[in-house]
Amino acid sequence: MLEKFWGEHDGVDFPHVVLAQQFSREQLEKIFILTSILKKEIGNGKMVEWLYGHIVLTLFYEPSTRTRLSHETAALRLGARVISSENAAEFSSAIKGETLEDTIKIVSAMADLVVMRHKATGSAQKAASVNASPIINGGDGLGQHPTQALLDVFTINEHFGNVDGLKVAMVGDLKRGRTVRSLTYMLSKFKGVEIYFVAPKIAQMGEDIKRHLDENKIWWGEEEEFQEVALEADVIYMTRYQLERAVSEEERRELEEVSKSHIMNRNVANDMPETSIIMHPLPRVEEIRWSVDQNPRAKYFEQAANGIYIRMALLLMILNPSKAVELLNSN
Amino acid sequence: MLEKFWGEHDGVDFPHVVLAQQFSREQLEKIFILTSILKKEIGNGKMVEWLYGHIVLTLFYEPSTRTRLSHETAALRLGARVISSENAAEFSSAIKGETLEDTIKIVSAMADLVVMRHKATGSAQKAASVNASPIINGGDGLGQHPTQALLDVFTINEHFGNVDGLKVAMVGDLKRGRTVRSLTYMLSKFKGVEIYFVAPKIAQMGEDIKRHLDENKIWWGEEEEFQEVALEADVIYMTRYQLERAVSEEERRELEEVSKSHIMNRNVANDMPETSIIMHPLPRVEEIRWSVDQNPRAKYFEQAANGIYIRMALLLMILNPSKAVELLNSN
Amino acid sequence: MLEKFWGEHDGVDFPHVVLAQQFSREQLEKIFILTSILKKEIGNGKMVEWLYGHIVLTLFYEPSTRTRLSHETAALRLGARVISSENAAEFSSAIKGETLEDTIKIVSAMADLVVMRHKATGSAQKAASVNASPIINGGDGLGQHPTQALLDVFTINEHFGNVDGLKVAMVGDLKRGRTVRSLTYMLSKFKGVEIYFVAPKIAQMGEDIKRHLDENKIWWGEEEEFQEVALEADVIYMTRYQLERAVSEEERRELEEVSKSHIMNRNVANDMPETSIIMHPLPRVEEIRWSVDQNPRAKYFEQAANGIYIRMALLLMILNPSKAVELLNSN
Repeated sequence: MLEKFWGEHDGVDFPHVVLAQQFSREQLEKIFILTSILKKEIGNGKMVEWLYGHIVLTLFYEPSTRTRLSHETAALRLGARVISSENAAEFSSAIKGETLEDTIKIVSAMADLVVMRHKATGSAQKAASVNASPIINGGDGLGQHPTQALLDVFTINEHFGNVDGLKVAMVGDLKRGRTVRSLTYMLSKFKGVEIYFVAPKIAQMGEDIKRHLDENKIWWGEEEEFQEVALEADVIYMTRYQLERAVSEEERRELEEVSKSHIMNRNVANDMPETSIIMHPLPRVEEIRWSVDQNPRAKYFEQAANGIYIRMALLLMILNPSKAVELLNSN
Repeated sequence: MLEKFWGEHDGVDFPHVVLAQQFSREQLEKIFILTSILKKEIGNGKMVEWLYGHIVLTLFYEPSTRTRLSHETAALRLGARVISSENAAEFSSAIKGETLEDTIKIVSAMADLVVMRHKATGSAQKAASVNASPIINGGDGLGQHPTQALLDVFTINEHFGNVDGLKVAMVGDLKRGRTVRSLTYMLSKFKGVEIYFVAPKIAQMGEDIKRHLDENKIWWGEEEEFQEVALEADVIYMTRYQLERAVSEEERRELEEVSKSHIMNRNVANDMPETSIIMHPLPRVEEIRWSVDQNPRAKYFEQAANGIYIRMALLLMILNPSKAVELLNSN
Repeated sequence: MLEKFWGEHDGVDFPHVVLAQQFSREQLEKIFILTSILKKEIGNGKMVEWLYGHIVLTLFYEPSTRTRLSHETAALRLGARVISSENAAEFSSAIKGETLEDTIKIVSAMADLVVMRHKATGSAQKAASVNASPIINGGDGLGQHPTQALLDVFTINEHFGNVDGLKVAMVGDLKRGRTVRSLTYMLSKFKGVEIYFVAPKIAQMGEDIKRHLDENKIWWGEEEEFQEVALEADVIYMTRYQLERAVSEEERRELEEVSKSHIMNRNVANDMPETSIIMHPLPRVEEIRWSVDQNPRAKYFEQAANGIYIRMALLLMILNPSKAVELLNSN
C-alpha cells in the first residue's frame, strides 16, 4: 500500500510524502545524508538554483506559521518560487462545498508541488491519491506530521552518528501529540531502540502505536516517574500538554495538574548523561525551563532549524532527483 | 468610454483589464494566439525572465484563493516577483476610511501592476481611473470577472478552432453568476453564436445582458429543459446554484429544489454531440457528477489551467509588450 | 544603551532598527544619501541582485498591509526573497503561549532578517535582544515606528536640501499618533529646528516627548490655531484623528468635534509659503481634502513612495554593508 506514495526512480525520488511509516530504513539514510550535505552547503544567506522553474504551493487549511515558513524557506533557498495560502479553508468551505480532490487537481496546474496542512486525518493521503502534483504532508489532523518525524530522527542521528540501540524517552501529552506518534513509527525502523513513554494515564500513548512496536519487536515501557528515566535516557523528547484539546473542564484541570510533574529544569538536565540530548517539537510553554537553554544538552532550537534542511532534501529528491543523486554520489 | 482602459501601442498593449466588453474581436484573437504560444512554451516546471524586474501585487479585498494563486503563478513563471494581500479590506476599513483611489496611488509605488478583487461592483473601473499602475480586475462584486471570461472563450476557441456559429448553453444560476455575464459579453463579439440560457425563472439571466445581445444581433433563447438542449449544444457551460446568496430562506429552498433538475450526469454527457464540451468555472458541488470527469467532453479542469496562460498573456502584453509582439510575429 | 542596537562595521552596518532615537545625525545623513542613490537607480520596473541569497521575513502580529508590502517590495527589488506572515499572532497565542524570544530564535534559522510589527510596546527591543537575525521594527504598539520617521525626515531633507533650521508643524491627534512621536525624536538630532504641536488639549503631544526636546534644546510650542501656523511653517505634518482609540464614547465625540477645526483644504494650502510642503503618514480620511492633492505643496504620496527606498537602504546596509559603502563612496 505504501508503494503508491513513492517510487525508486534514480534511487531516490518519490512523489509523495504522506506517512512517517512510508520510508524504508535505506531511504531514511539517504535522506539524512542529503540533509547533511544541504545543511553544510546552503545555510543562512545562501541560495542555489537547483529548483529554478519550479513553483511550490503551501496550502494550509489551518494556520501553522512555522511549518509553512520552514517549507517556504527550503523551497526559496533551492531556487524555487513559492505561492501560498494561509487560509485555504475557503477552498472547500461548507458554502462552496468543493471536494479536496477537485482542489488538488486545480492547484496542480499552478504548482509543481503542494505542501498541505489540513484539519482532517487522512487528508494528505486523499490528496496524494489524485495523482497530480506531488504532495508533502505538513500535518493532517490527529494523524501524521512526517517531516517533523524526519527532522526529529535526523537530529538524533546527527548527534549520535546512528539511531540503533538508543534509549529514547518521550515525555508529556503523548495521547494528544501528533509528533510523538510519527516519531515512534519512524524509530521502529531502527534496531535495538528502546522507547519509554513517560506520561500519566490520561495522556499515555495510544494502543495502536504500542501494537505497531510489538509487531516490529521494538522494546517499549510506560513510566510515570520522569526523573528516573532522565538519568538513563539518551534522548529526552519533551512535549507540551495540550490543555486546549481536553474534552472536558475536568480533564483539562487534571492534565494541568499532572503537567507539573513533568518539567525539565536545570537540575534534571544536569543529571542526564553527558552525551544525552533534550528535544522538543516547539512551541514550548513551561515544560522546559528557560534556564535549560544554556545546557549543552538542549537541542530543540537546532532541531527546529534542521527542519529546513530536511524539507530541502525532500523537495530536491522529488523535484530534481538527478541533482539529489549527484550530491549523494559525490559525498 | 472603453478606450480609456486600453490602448494600441505596439499593436497589443493596454494598461487596464477591467471589463469583458473592453476587448475588440481583433484583440481577443491576439490574446488567444499569445496564450497558445505561452501554453506551449511555459508549462509546469518552466520559467522565463521576460518580466524580470517587475513586481505584481495581488490586492484581494475578499478571498478568492484560486484566482489569486493563478495570477501569482502566471507572474512568477514569467519572471516577475509577487507581493500579496489576501485580506486587503483593512486598507479601506470603516475605521481608517481610506478611499480606494488613495490606496491605489500608494500601492502603485510598490507594484508595477495590481491584480485586484473587490466586493463592490465597479471598483476595478474606479481603480483604473486613478491612472497609476495598470489594474487587472480579478472580479468586482456582482459586476465583472473578465479574465475568467477570457479563459472561457479561449478554451472554446482552442477546442473548436473558432467561436463563430457555435451553440453555447449556459446552465444553472445565471442570475447570481458573475462568470456567465462576462462570458456572454465576450461571446457577443463573435458572429452567428447562439446562446441558450437554461435556468428556472428565479435564476434566469438579467435583462441588461439580453438587451446587450439584442443590440449586437446575437440570437438567444431561454430554456428550462436541460436535456433537450444538451442534445444539440456545442458547449454546455454549467454553473453552481449560489444558495448562499439567496435573499430569503424561501428563495434558498426554491433554488435548492430547482437545482436538482440541472445535473450533468453520465447519461446526459454521453448523449451530447461527440465534439461538444462541458465547461464549469469551478468550484462545482454536485451539478456535475464525478463520473463525468472521465468523459472526454469534460473540459473544466483544463479550462481552469488555461486561466494561468490567459493571465500570463495579459501580464506580458501589459508589462512587456515588445516581447509579446515578438512572440506574435514569430508565430 | 542604544549601542546594542547597532554598530559601525564598515562605517554603515548595524544589526537592528528598533528606535528612532538610535541613529546619530551622521548615520541619518548616510542613510539619506544611500536612499537617494537607490531611488535614482532602482525605481519601478527595476531590480538588482545585491541581496541575492537573502531571505527577509515580514512577521506581522497585527495587520499593516502598506508597511508590510513596502518592506517586501524593497527586499524583492534588491534581489532578496521574501517569506511572510500577516497573522503571526497565532505564534504566541494564548493557547500555545510561546514567548516572543523563542519565536525569534526559531524564525532566525529561516530568515536572514526579520521585519516585525507587534501590538505590544517594546516588542522590537525584546526581539533584538535575542541576538539572532537582525530586526527591523515595523511598528510596536504605541511605541515606535522608526522606518516611518526615517522616510518622513528623508522627504523633508530631500525637498529642502537640509533639515536644520526648519519650522515643522505637526497637526492633529498627536497624543495617539505613533508617527509624530518617532518623527519628533528624529528631528531633535538637527540644529535650530522649531516644532509646533497643533492640537486640542485632549490630543496634545505627550510630556515625555516635550521633555526630550527640552533636554536636546529644541524649541517647541503648543498651538490650537491651525491656520496661523500654516502661514509660516515650512512643513505641515497632518495626522488622522484616531477616533477608534478613544477610551470613552464621550472622548470619541469630543475628538470628532475638534477634528473639524484642523482640516487642510485648498485655501489653507494656498496660503502656505511657496516652498513649504504638506505631509501625512496616510491613510488620510478627511483631514486633507482631495482638492489639495493637485497643490504642488502636497508631498504625501511621494512621501509614502520614499518609504520603499528608505527600507531598501536599511536592508542593504544591514545585509550587504560593503555594497552600501561602495555606493556611498562612488557618490
